[in-house]
Amino acid sequence: MPIDFHKRNKGKIEIKSKVSIDNNDDLSLAYTPGVAKVSQEIFKDKSKVYELTSKSNMIAIVTDGSAVLGLGDIGPEAALPVMEGKSALFKQFGGVDAIPIVLDTKDSDEIINIVKKISPGFGGINLEDISAPRCFEIEKRLKQELDILVFHDDQHGSAIAVLAALINALKIVGKKFSSIKVVINGAGAAGIATANILIEQGVTNLFLVDSKGVTCTPRIDLNEYKMAVANKVNMDFCGDLSDAVKDADVFIGVSIGNLLSKEMVKSMAKDAIVIAMANPLPEIMPNDAYEAGAAIVATGRSDFSNQVNNSLVFPGLFRGALDVGAKKITREMILAAAHALAAHVKNPSKDKIIPGMFDKGVADTVADAVKDAVIE
Amino acid sequence: MPIDFHKRNKGKIEIKSKVSIDNNDDLSLAYTPGVAKVSQEIFKDKSKVYELTSKSNMIAIVTDGSAVLGLGDIGPEAALPVMEGKSALFKQFGGVDAIPIVLDTKDSDEIINIVKKISPGFGGINLEDISAPRCFEIEKRLKQELDILVFHDDQHGSAIAVLAALINALKIVGKKFSSIKVVINGAGAAGIATANILIEQGVTNLFLVDSKGVTCTPRIDLNEYKMAVANKVNMDFCGDLSDAVKDADVFIGVSIGNLLSKEMVKSMAKDAIVIAMANPLPEIMPNDAYEAGAAIVATGRSDFSNQVNNSLVFPGLFRGALDVGAKKITREMILAAAHALAAHVKNPSKDKIIPGMFDKGVADTVADAVKDAVIE
Repeated sequence: MPIDFHKRNKGKIEIKSKVSIDNNDDLSLAYTPGVAKVSQEIFKDKSKVYELTSKSNMIAIVTDGSAVLGLGDIGPEAALPVMEGKSALFKQFGGVDAIPIVLDTKDSDEIINIVKKISPGFGGINLEDISAPRCFEIEKRLKQELDILVFHDDQHGSAIAVLAALINALKIVGKKFSSIKVVINGAGAAGIATANILIEQGVTNLFLVDSKGVTCTPRIDLNEYKMAVANKVNMDFCGDLSDAVKDADVFIGVSIGNLLSKEMVKSMAKDAIVIAMANPLPEIMPNDAYEAGAAIVATGRSDFSNQVNNSLVFPGLFRGALDVGAKKITREMILAAAHALAAHVKNPSKDKIIPGMFDKGVADTVADAVKDAVIE
Repeated sequence: MPIDFHKRNKGKIEIKSKVSIDNNDDLSLAYTPGVAKVSQEIFKDKSKVYELTSKSNMIAIVTDGSAVLGLGDIGPEAALPVMEGKSALFKQFGGVDAIPIVLDTKDSDEIINIVKKISPGFGGINLEDISAPRCFEIEKRLKQELDILVFHDDQHGSAIAVLAALINALKIVGKKFSSIKVVINGAGAAGIATANILIEQGVTNLFLVDSKGVTCTPRIDLNEYKMAVANKVNMDFCGDLSDAVKDADVFIGVSIGNLLSKEMVKSMAKDAIVIAMANPLPEIMPNDAYEAGAAIVATGRSDFSNQVNNSLVFPGLFRGALDVGAKKITREMILAAAHALAAHVKNPSKDKIIPGMFDKGVADTVADAVKDAVIE
């Protein structure tokens, strides 16, 4: 069924002209000789490229296909359907024009160089599905070296969506960020960014778990990004996932399916919140989590309530940032997006801790919050 | 007026989704979880990327902005309006999706590497407005190293359009390729490609002229591409343009405006053909050329009859090549396109030696000829 869906139109995106070229007059405006004046105008003042070309609304979705969905390193060609889907969502929900650029290289320096060299035509770069820890360095350097928007969606899109869900979930169970114990399973792009955004929100009791157990300072195999998180929280506790989840108030899964057992959920604190985002198979199925005593369960899937998905974030975030001509995505914009997304749910309940993708005005809410954050 | 035209919609192109995503069912087909199956299918068999993504109809228009229109080296940002115009024409006339990739580098090796690394998402590469002689090396290596269509429009698009115009013009004046004297003024991408296509058609009496005069073998300042042409024709004649045009049957200008004087046209052979393609100001204005005795005059402009413009070529050429899944643009396809374009004019006359951009079916004619050339 998805195969037929993709075969029908040979993929999901196309280029459309915003102007009609029906006669020589149109042609002489859109192309030669008229376009020469437009090019000269930009040559004299490069900033005019924003008003005279599509750059101001055009972004590149850049991936090397090294960490795609739950599929892993499948390469640039196989990543393309995901990037085209993302492009379709960018346009439909945010009115943002986004073209997939799938790269046949996994060398970080080369990726950085290519993105820099293709950047003149784009108003922003959405990094996507690049494996950790390379993604951190790539994003950091591109943010430093480019004067257009750079955003790694797997990190910040996920972190924003989780924070939004958690703001509402904690309200429902009457707990505070400063007093909860959080376990994040998965220490890739999403896990590390989520850990950092929660620490910024006041969480101090946090365990980041990778495939070898809790990322604690005694471990000598941690990359600098995991170590930085370990240095901020629970520095020397080195157990495994089942040790970590004992008495935890919140479990956040950004790992792979079926890792969280019912026994583990039973060992969590009262009114436990489980956000199991592995896709398509969550770390625990919602029914199992509820049976084991969880108070609120969310997943990344559209067929259960509480879908925590970065699709709620990226269209509105870029829409707002592009509209005000922002050149950076700042922490203020990221936090504003999360809080606005949470507030979009008027009456949060256990089955509605985050807006649905098709709730009215979600992207506008995020876009407006981002714009306000820039203006402040 | 062109400025307002470009400001109105902020540029000329946008991305459009070919599928509608209006509910969770659509979402689960176009994006997660359904898209995972599609990615896995391509991971197993890379060739499926042609039927399951937009690659089969998506090309990149790649430039470094080093030789744009008559404007020269204006850089990637200022080149963008031209590339967007090209994209609009690709779609309108050929139904081809073309995205501008404007590069912030003029290093040939780097351009080649970047194009190779971004190629997995594209079915073809249209190189554009890259200065000679770098463009020859870049095209040659990309054709060798990529398994998708590579076409440098400034070379071959121009050469095809000139050849088409000349086929009809020679019919009208009753002359043959094998017996005419041709002067090409301008030895950049278009000039060299035009020289080569005319030599293939049987022209032996040909003078290629650059800013220092006729490119003749005694000159020690010629690049290998100019030298190769000189070695095929008129090897040791070293005069200037006015020497070269004496008794010439055909003048082809792909240089800069106002270089061909009425005196020079007067010195040409009887029934002289003048194709003055510099844009926006031709090498000689049509009225002046006719007053000086030319029999047939063509320019690159839409406001005179006989517009010799590569826009007549590239939409149909790529349409045909993409439709049959060709992986190379061959000489056979190029020659077929030129002859089909000429034949599209049913009754050639001095004011109609080449189809107009808005004549019915021009791109289809070219596309069909290209498809036939592939199939043969």
